[in-house]
Amino acid sequence: MSATNKVKPTHCEMSQFETSGDQLVINHVPVSQLCDRVGQTPFYAYDRSVIANNIHQLREQFNSLANLHYAIKANPMSALVDFISPLVDGLDVASGKELTVALNSGISPNKISFAGPGKQSQELLMAIAAGVTINVESAIELERIMRICDSSNYAANIALRVNPDFDLKASGMKMAGGAQQFGIDAEKIAQLTPLLQHEKINLKGLHIFTGSQNLKSEAIQAAHNNIFELAAKLSEQLNCSLDHLNIGGGFGIPYFPGETPLDLPPIADNLAKLRKAYQKQFSTTEIILELGRYLVGNAGVYITRVIDIKQSRGENFVIVDGGLHHHLSASGNFGQVIRKNYPVKIANKINQTQSQTATITGPLCTPLDLLAKNMQFPEIEIGDLVAVFQSGAYGFTASPRDFLSHPQPIEVLV
Amino acid sequence: MSATNKVKPTHCEMSQFETSGDQLVINHVPVSQLCDRVGQTPFYAYDRSVIANNIHQLREQFNSLANLHYAIKANPMSALVDFISPLVDGLDVASGKELTVALNSGISPNKISFAGPGKQSQELLMAIAAGVTINVESAIELERIMRICDSSNYAANIALRVNPDFDLKASGMKMAGGAQQFGIDAEKIAQLTPLLQHEKINLKGLHIFTGSQNLKSEAIQAAHNNIFELAAKLSEQLNCSLDHLNIGGGFGIPYFPGETPLDLPPIADNLAKLRKAYQKQFSTTEIILELGRYLVGNAGVYITRVIDIKQSRGENFVIVDGGLHHHLSASGNFGQVIRKNYPVKIANKINQTQSQTATITGPLCTPLDLLAKNMQFPEIEIGDLVAVFQSGAYGFTASPRDFLSHPQPIEVLV
Repeated sequence: MSATNKVKPTHCEMSQFETSGDQLVINHVPVSQLCDRVGQTPFYAYDRSVIANNIHQLREQFNSLANLHYAIKANPMSALVDFISPLVDGLDVASGKELTVALNSGISPNKISFAGPGKQSQELLMAIAAGVTINVESAIELERIMRICDSSNYAANIALRVNPDFDLKASGMKMAGGAQQFGIDAEKIAQLTPLLQHEKINLKGLHIFTGSQNLKSEAIQAAHNNIFELAAKLSEQLNCSLDHLNIGGGFGIPYFPGETPLDLPPIADNLAKLRKAYQKQFSTTEIILELGRYLVGNAGVYITRVIDIKQSRGENFVIVDGGLHHHLSASGNFGQVIRKNYPVKIANKINQTQSQTATITGPLCTPLDLLAKNMQFPEIEIGDLVAVFQSGAYGFTASPRDFLSHPQPIEVLV
Repeated sequence: MSATNKVKPTHCEMSQFETSGDQLVINHVPVSQLCDRVGQTPFYAYDRSVIANNIHQLREQFNSLANLHYAIKANPMSALVDFISPLVDGLDVASGKELTVALNSGISPNKISFAGPGKQSQELLMAIAAGVTINVESAIELERIMRICDSSNYAANIALRVNPDFDLKASGMKMAGGAQQFGIDAEKIAQLTPLLQHEKINLKGLHIFTGSQNLKSEAIQAAHNNIFELAAKLSEQLNCSLDHLNIGGGFGIPYFPGETPLDLPPIADNLAKLRKAYQKQFSTTEIILELGRYLVGNAGVYITRVIDIKQSRGENFVIVDGGLHHHLSASGNFGQVIRKNYPVKIANKINQTQSQTATITGPLCTPLDLLAKNMQFPEIEIGDLVAVFQSGAYGFTASPRDFLSHPQPIEVLV
């Protein structure tokens, strides 16, 4: 194997991957070789070294300031969770099945939390029996947990998920402020005090999550300021010291032209100030950063193969064996108002000169099945490999994979 | 069981279902009883009698004017395809797996056609070996088919999928006109004549599909006029008489307030005129209407159960055990630019007076997980059943069912 080179950095920071000649390299494996090893296209490949590096960078930055949890929903692939589990301080799950994946990884149940607005009774029982922390989303849910404890020998570890009275500015997705299906309105938390006296309910902490996919350091700092202030107030109202305070995540990654990576140092500096300012209230409180996409998003690439090429009325169309059904977000159809191209390259011609404008579409009988609209590429031939970057989070599981009944993609951890 | 009543007709034409007391009735089964019979929520229920009636109405309208095909992609559930198969003149498939479902239904292979812009070599071989008609999407695909025929003892039945030089006005989704990944540009069809002389290639017809989900009778008539004119011209250029002409479908169904059902009689009248006007060219040509959503869309209902109820800052939230992950379109996140509410009702309180405004959300940790935003409902209790209507097409298979790893919904044909 010849010496590898870094991909030229672009807006999407594909510099996390190296190249060798014309080949994209995923953790030392050239993409064409990886295809043969996987045995089919399309597939998702996740690079262990990129994930480990993301976690290492965060640890360096937030060392002693906050513990790091992985939110499994971003990518629940078992092997990936097993890899991440010993590298982080905890795992956050959003369903009974995710809870099973988390426990299977061998992590201690007291490092697992379970959030989600519509938990099934079966899921609550699973979580209580496992001894994980349930982030309680409503007064009714708290009563349901108490009934399960009453009718069993279990005690329940809980945290209260708070819907704060502020939101996260400039966020890809707001999860707090105003009326929400998530958590309990901040001003109603104190009313829960009588319920919390129940002998089998152990209140461990608070969960205040404000939004996701944010690229503005200042917005995240402002949210952290508000979260600490609110948590201190609620802790006083509840007259308890918190074992932990989950301040959520929301750290975004750049997907589109013009987007730049999140500036972490000011967030860490601000967190250091907050820890000092609230030393009295939170001296023994574990501060938890819960991140999903930020740990795995840039570590994943979706690989699909060129099946057909055609010119139609002056435009070049490249048709591949994967598409919308495997990668809904990249097609621009998952809640996006305006479609933008994900970073897409020809993986086996990664360093070749761009010489044409082409549109890359999938095999589905719908114009929604679009992976790249009028992007620049080198010459493309049938059999070439198309790589969609920034595909490690909300790809495989967040796609309608049975749509039109095409073969399933494979996931590999490399 | 007491006598049943029809649901009061609304914009979404839910009058296809009857009611009994407070219960929505699906083909003689009250919804609460159906829940017990299915064994879980959430589930999709498809009503045989509604499907049969849709087909009967179409047959009455287009009798002797056109044959009726079912496009499996709208809903590929095996039992449903098996039920529809003997009621229609043919099936259209979009992948190898859909081809298998179609063949399993027992229909003759010569009544099956296979379309799609990125067919795998394996799929082409399957189709050729089965003897179904392949709707050829590009010159390269035609060459690939010829190579398979050359290297085997098979002959291939093909139709040419044409990208016309006109589009379908007022369509939910345009599939033709301008530059497209679908089909072969009309002006390039004649160039294929030499290839079509191949002894193992049987040209059976043309496929001209212009768009989907159209509610304007005039727009569909205009498209039909253009399709007949173009097909006649191409048939002359190719110097062959067509066994069949697939004029696509595109018949829409109403989903949202203000939408009204498609007016079929003018479309049939216009088709009668066209058949007369082109009698010379198409005297022995089978005209095919290919419909998916129109046969099954209004026959399906998605049922999910209320798990939690909360008030947050003046708004009522009802949280159910299903959502976006099972029914992406109803959540408004599948390519929709502006989210609109599907018709949603409380299925076990179907005739109760609406007394509140509420928002119905699913169990996922994302604000995208929304089934009804600020709609009118009767009083709602935990355990109530929420019905999302118009859910028979592009529901189950067109949703990211592994997103957040919640339990899968079940599909039943009732």
